[in-house]
Amino acid sequence: MKRISEYSSIAEARIRSLSLPSGSLDNLYAPVTYGMQAGGKRLRPTLVLMAADAFGGCAEKALDAAAGIEMFHNFTLLHDDVMDNSDLRRGRPTVHAKWDANTAILSGDTMLTLATQLVANVDDNILRPVLDTFNSQALRVYEGQRLDMDFENREEVPLGEYLDMIKGKTGALLGGSAKIGAIIGGASAEDADLMYEFGMMLGVAFQIEDDYLDTFGNADTFGKPIGGDINNNKKTFLTVKALSEASAGADALRVAMKMQAGPTKVKTVTRIYETLDMPAVCRAEVAAYSSKALAAVKATALPDDRRDAFRSLIEKLIGRTK
Amino acid sequence: MKRISEYSSIAEARIRSLSLPSGSLDNLYAPVTYGMQAGGKRLRPTLVLMAADAFGGCAEKALDAAAGIEMFHNFTLLHDDVMDNSDLRRGRPTVHAKWDANTAILSGDTMLTLATQLVANVDDNILRPVLDTFNSQALRVYEGQRLDMDFENREEVPLGEYLDMIKGKTGALLGGSAKIGAIIGGASAEDADLMYEFGMMLGVAFQIEDDYLDTFGNADTFGKPIGGDINNNKKTFLTVKALSEASAGADALRVAMKMQAGPTKVKTVTRIYETLDMPAVCRAEVAAYSSKALAAVKATALPDDRRDAFRSLIEKLIGRTK
Repeated sequence: MKRISEYSSIAEARIRSLSLPSGSLDNLYAPVTYGMQAGGKRLRPTLVLMAADAFGGCAEKALDAAAGIEMFHNFTLLHDDVMDNSDLRRGRPTVHAKWDANTAILSGDTMLTLATQLVANVDDNILRPVLDTFNSQALRVYEGQRLDMDFENREEVPLGEYLDMIKGKTGALLGGSAKIGAIIGGASAEDADLMYEFGMMLGVAFQIEDDYLDTFGNADTFGKPIGGDINNNKKTFLTVKALSEASAGADALRVAMKMQAGPTKVKTVTRIYETLDMPAVCRAEVAAYSSKALAAVKATALPDDRRDAFRSLIEKLIGRTK
Repeated sequence: MKRISEYSSIAEARIRSLSLPSGSLDNLYAPVTYGMQAGGKRLRPTLVLMAADAFGGCAEKALDAAAGIEMFHNFTLLHDDVMDNSDLRRGRPTVHAKWDANTAILSGDTMLTLATQLVANVDDNILRPVLDTFNSQALRVYEGQRLDMDFENREEVPLGEYLDMIKGKTGALLGGSAKIGAIIGGASAEDADLMYEFGMMLGVAFQIEDDYLDTFGNADTFGKPIGGDINNNKKTFLTVKALSEASAGADALRVAMKMQAGPTKVKTVTRIYETLDMPAVCRAEVAAYSSKALAAVKATALPDDRRDAFRSLIEKLIGRTK
């Protein structure tokens, strides 16, 4: 097995080598290329390559599937930015802002079909399970996004529903990435499902950590202003968990959520979370989901030395709380 | 072979029997069902079933692919209605109007993935060519839609570019429908490609006729107000063709296109088209593309009695000019 950074470099190289039509169709395909150049950790394609290498020593055969998974991820970002009316992502204008909403819709549609083409570029004998996995995870992602949009119109959301939402919005694509990589590597159906579980649990841990960092993180390393979720009254793990049990803190939080957005609101809500011991609660949850992810990998037939890469991936991703 | 109306009834029944999740995900899936209930001729799935029956006597095996093709078509309508900001389609509020733009975007995405799942529901040995055909036609549809959007910002469009646009926007999905049905029926690769050509040429004939009817049709049978394209200065076959050659009529048309929208503009432009003999030109073009469609079917290995169904389909669709 290679180091994680090597897998992400290989994925990055494949993504940069994708060739799309140009000329009179620039208004369709240039936004696709722009969307794919957003950079980031390339976490999902890295996971595809790692799983293919772990099970079959064949990261090479998973290159197009990895690029397709990243294409799918960026398609969802293009459409999410239209739906959220977001003008900036990672410090760059979104497609929606740089071109217009219609371009982001149509080039996003194009990316979904291109993603399907890339993911389908596997041996004929595994096309069916790879395609089924890809389509199923896609539906779970849309379902998660829909629930997230619906939550905006609700006062309070039960913890179970919140977890369902992040399992769809964040977990399903990581699960699909690990499973598709495993199938390409030649894993048994049982092991491929265990790798889906690994990716899903990793996704939940990752999202809870992201929610935590939005309030308790360091603005320099987090990359977004701290307190954004609080000011937007966003339903995060912290809000949902804090409100899930009757407490003086929960009552105080309900009052604080009605405050005007601003530094005072952020400070007040942060104090309430501290009173409720939310940092420790979050750390415990992240650790619990990370353990579930690791347990799934341990249940596969992979030898110890190949499991370690996935343990390292977990540590790399959730090390941010420390 | 059955009668065309029987194939469309079978397609309609399969579409109505599609079962989607409900409950907490109603905001995602109810717009999908609503979009699929728009009715219409069900031309595309009818063509899938006809081709499968003609080549293999197995319309049954093509039912899900037919429903998937219709799902794809309706996905494009959901997104087109957002892009055009259209509130009505066939006399019903669009998803965009009945729910909102974000719902139309996300439920449209869901329809594209559901369409891919349905179309993939074919025997393993033909999954690859069916999926490749589906994805290729999808890209051509987006490309056609993009060109159509780009045309709005141009004064004049060359005839060749206009034809490229309608080949994508209207022809590719009809071509893909006929080809996918043929593959399911067991056609050779050559015959499947000829059926693509059939659908493509049928689509071009159909679109030119649609452009003609928008000016010269009967409002009762056409289903849309006559003159809409003229009032919107839309680039149609009539405009593009009329402007393609230097003439006093072309100059008059350029002046008339600057008139304010209204009955006087519609009457003026219609007279110019009549002076330029556009009704006869349109009829000749529709006949020429219909002949090309028929020639493609004749070039296949299909016996005479099975070709006749496709001749009937052409007559049914382009009989509207008469």
